Amino acid sequence: MADAPPEIEELIALMARLPGLGPRSARRAVLHLMKRRDRLLVPLAQSLAAVGAHIRECSACGNLGTGDICTICADPARATGQLCVVADVADLWAMERARVFAGRYHVLGGLLSALDAIGPDDLGIPRLAGRLGAEGVTEVILALPATLDGQTTMHYLADRLAGVRITTLAQGVPVGGELDWLDEGTIGAALRARRDLE
Amino acid sequence: MADAPPEIEELIALMARLPGLGPRSARRAVLHLMKRRDRLLVPLAQSLAAVGAHIRECSACGNLGTGDICTICADPARATGQLCVVADVADLWAMERARVFAGRYHVLGGLLSALDAIGPDDLGIPRLAGRLGAEGVTEVILALPATLDGQTTMHYLADRLAGVRITTLAQGVPVGGELDWLDEGTIGAALRARRDLE
Repeated sequence: MADAPPEIEELIALMARLPGLGPRSARRAVLHLMKRRDRLLVPLAQSLAAVGAHIRECSACGNLGTGDICTICADPARATGQLCVVADVADLWAMERARVFAGRYHVLGGLLSALDAIGPDDLGIPRLAGRLGAEGVTEVILALPATLDGQTTMHYLADRLAGVRITTLAQGVPVGGELDWLDEGTIGAALRARRDLE
Repeated sequence: MADAPPEIEELIALMARLPGLGPRSARRAVLHLMKRRDRLLVPLAQSLAAVGAHIRECSACGNLGTGDICTICADPARATGQLCVVADVADLWAMERARVFAGRYHVLGGLLSALDAIGPDDLGIPRLAGRLGAEGVTEVILALPATLDGQTTMHYLADRLAGVRITTLAQGVPVGGELDWLDEGTIGAALRARRDLE
């Protein structure tokens, strides 16, 4: 019996390595692409090639951009003395979408994890420490996830980074959040951090 | 505030159009690709380009292949007089994986659907009718999904295709299937089609 052409099998195998797609959904995605060759498959191939050729990590902060230094690090208006530490580029983008932070970032590229054997050197924490003096940083905002690894990383960073103010994002009820749907940890944190109504 | 580079935004937008990926998971997939540039992103771009350039629909049956005629249609050993009609190339691949059918296929590329305004001409049913005499087909096996649209299409095809035996896949309990988990329709069909134990 005949298999699918090897080019298709190879494409399915590659697509199946994307997060969120398994072997079955990768096959479905490939057939979807074949039916939309000019409108989706060819543009996607070109877009991937362009990203592969032109996008690189910022050598200062780890953000993605077209140059050696990303647009945020290259913008002198963002040298506010505030440095926001995030785990991943996706978190940097989330912060930027919120349009509430005017300083610069540092992307760790992960979190300390004993389980996954990720240590301080894997996350470039010495490089982060080096930026503090070089860029006149006065406050480091730790915008790390409220998970066990996130908390571990925060405590490690707070110990390592001396001579600057270290802050972290507030924990509490999300905007639009219903108490009914929140976990006990969030409700507890929100109650402990309660503030006077103005 | 800065957005992600336009190349990245474009790639996320294209990835989000794949079935199974939404805007959030597309962003996650793109970051996953960026972290695996040489091992995944570049090979994926090349694989997509190769598929876009070399893979086409078989002009006879609608299967995917590298030539004008797919390997199944080009194989004289598969001119058995049996023609298996499937809705989609994925179904053809599923039949081939089962390694139980030695004849040829006809891919409709969809199902008749009043709701989606898909009629007989959209599915190339006249082309299918033309193959019967030209290829000496003696039996048409309708391997269409057991859905409303699938049943409608089967009945339409059974009316249209004259002079050949028309069969359809048996309905019943799947191999390994537990009665407890099966819907009433399947159990009813399996009971009506019950057979003597040999």
